[in-house]
Amino acid sequence: MNSKQFSSTTAGQVIRCKAAMAWEVGKPLVIEEVEVAPPQAMEVRLKILFTSLCHTDVYFWEAKGQTPLFPRIFGHEVGGIVERVGEGVTDLKPGDHVLPVFIGECKECRHCKSEESNMCDLLRINTDRGVMLNDGKSRFSINRKPIYHFVGASTFSEYTVLHVGSVAKINPAAPLDKVCVLSCGILTGLGATLNVAKPKKGSTVAVFGLGAVGLAVAEGARIAGASRILGVDLNAKRFDEAKKFGVTEFVNPKDHDKPVHEVLAEMTNGGVDRSIECTGSINAMISAFECVHDGWGVAVLVGVPNKDDAFKTHPMNILNERTIKGTFFGNYKPRFDLPSVVEKYMNKELELEKFITHEVSFSEINEAFEYMLRGEGLRCIIRMDALSRI
Amino acid sequence: MNSKQFSSTTAGQVIRCKAAMAWEVGKPLVIEEVEVAPPQAMEVRLKILFTSLCHTDVYFWEAKGQTPLFPRIFGHEVGGIVERVGEGVTDLKPGDHVLPVFIGECKECRHCKSEESNMCDLLRINTDRGVMLNDGKSRFSINRKPIYHFVGASTFSEYTVLHVGSVAKINPAAPLDKVCVLSCGILTGLGATLNVAKPKKGSTVAVFGLGAVGLAVAEGARIAGASRILGVDLNAKRFDEAKKFGVTEFVNPKDHDKPVHEVLAEMTNGGVDRSIECTGSINAMISAFECVHDGWGVAVLVGVPNKDDAFKTHPMNILNERTIKGTFFGNYKPRFDLPSVVEKYMNKELELEKFITHEVSFSEINEAFEYMLRGEGLRCIIRMDALSRI
Repeated sequence: MNSKQFSSTTAGQVIRCKAAMAWEVGKPLVIEEVEVAPPQAMEVRLKILFTSLCHTDVYFWEAKGQTPLFPRIFGHEVGGIVERVGEGVTDLKPGDHVLPVFIGECKECRHCKSEESNMCDLLRINTDRGVMLNDGKSRFSINRKPIYHFVGASTFSEYTVLHVGSVAKINPAAPLDKVCVLSCGILTGLGATLNVAKPKKGSTVAVFGLGAVGLAVAEGARIAGASRILGVDLNAKRFDEAKKFGVTEFVNPKDHDKPVHEVLAEMTNGGVDRSIECTGSINAMISAFECVHDGWGVAVLVGVPNKDDAFKTHPMNILNERTIKGTFFGNYKPRFDLPSVVEKYMNKELELEKFITHEVSFSEINEAFEYMLRGEGLRCIIRMDALSRI
Repeated sequence: MNSKQFSSTTAGQVIRCKAAMAWEVGKPLVIEEVEVAPPQAMEVRLKILFTSLCHTDVYFWEAKGQTPLFPRIFGHEVGGIVERVGEGVTDLKPGDHVLPVFIGECKECRHCKSEESNMCDLLRINTDRGVMLNDGKSRFSINRKPIYHFVGASTFSEYTVLHVGSVAKINPAAPLDKVCVLSCGILTGLGATLNVAKPKKGSTVAVFGLGAVGLAVAEGARIAGASRILGVDLNAKRFDEAKKFGVTEFVNPKDHDKPVHEVLAEMTNGGVDRSIECTGSINAMISAFECVHDGWGVAVLVGVPNKDDAFKTHPMNILNERTIKGTFFGNYKPRFDLPSVVEKYMNKELELEKFITHEVSFSEINEAFEYMLRGEGLRCIIRMDALSRI
């Protein structure tokens, strides 16, 4: 596969390919033929090789508490290859290996120019928008009827169109079936630790929630040289898996009569050095904050809360030199930072294989949903090649 | 005045000197003769030359909401000279110029060994303890009846005894009648900006509360090169004074129908880069947090809240890459950091004169209380020398 092949077969044309259609809230996806329009200005069309399923896909497919937007093509954790670039795209070309990301980096706004933020004004996550920014229209259709995009990615399709700002070019030697998991949850957890909590060597780290994101937090703590990684989860089944990620001790709040922040403080002589919350439960957020040591403790919030939640604590808990920070996508700037994280994997500093617990072919995509709904495993890779036409 | 003079006249003896006695809650102080015992192990006895009045003195003298501890000698912002050292004291000697501090630095505990904390386990502020750590007794008495200490300082006395960990040795060339204000509020505000909020050059900084601490925050922002310093206060009278401290714009929440965090966000294209809360009002704390820009904003809490307050915000405000931190004494380690702050003043980088708005002799100490109760001025220096015996 190279750029010549692409340009000779598909350039400038509408591509007809297979996509996993979500027609209705919570109903199994259906593999169907869709039309994918060519990329417009500052857009790229990608061939998707591997995609994996993330909770966010399931959350919006279930559409609990949100306005449903259907028919839609979900998917946003992915590895692919550039098939064609639109007008004005200069830093990507057909054949480039890429990780698309559900946020982006326009490189022009105040956030992109700030060293501290990755919340690009132009390409900030928007789960309600199902169309492209350029013309407010979709690039997907079935019999000319438009199909909604999802978080600017829609990777449950053999081809998809994204804004160039949401596409990170990576080392072509990197195995896309592994590094594809970096384009959402794993990077979120890893960055929450390495970029935001920044535990020092030898410190204690608490992780609330031992799903894929929480285990990526633990992986970050392992890389940072934490001496103790305390995993907190209501599901005792997760503890065995978590050991592989360097979690040294387990706390199930159900096993204790006292609040979990007190349990953690007792285990760590007054509190942990860093804590990272990956569940989205407001009680876990408050506990994650209150369990850090005074004087230097830092709590980082990652999990997405409910609309009506309130974070509530006594202000003295803050005054006593504790810090609370929030992060989004682990504070990574997608285009700038992803290539170097891929290199961390290539140098064997970062382990990704242990996150990949299942693999299915594209035609079996509903099985990936079932694994996640049953809470089985961490990441399920969906191989697109069985249906590939190139 | 030198060490010989001291050692020949007072060493090893009980000193009889004048102190401003607080006999009862909220009643004017009375200058009386007290006995000051010699320092015990790891203690030093100081001759106080200048002390200034801080809100904390007034707060505990009024004893609102606290268990009153009387008779007591208040005072903790101070410049003095070591008169005698107790057993085991090796880094101070008679004649050293010092700033006593209401917290301390034992140099042995986890906090003192941490680069991040200044909340020494041994010498952490304790407003309920009116005695020395060494033997649980007071070094002050009148006719052998003990008088309580205040926050380990009690500087409204010509002589006082402190734990060595609460005494910072400074450049003897520094004028004690100026640098004495560094031993509490001014340093708290300065450090909240320079050590904790750390605004970058050209950034926007909001200051909630334009008392002495808030103006020291502004002074820190000026030193850091902030482009805009927005002062927030309910008292419009404070705005004129604040201009001298580099405050560029004023916001009186009373002048607006909408919440003050929205007013500030509108003035600054989405939020300030840093905000520092110096009032202790819970609403100001929440506004100070909610007015910082997403992506990079940092809010720092300095003001001491009420017992029953709750800091409450929607967790998405945190998730959107905002940070909230608390600080105590501006995160300065008293013995380690104070000498270098005094040098900042000596190099004319830091301006202290503008904080000193009044000066009274020791016999007029109740006037200093009146200035503060009426909200007049910033710091009133109390000169001890009119009553001095050396």
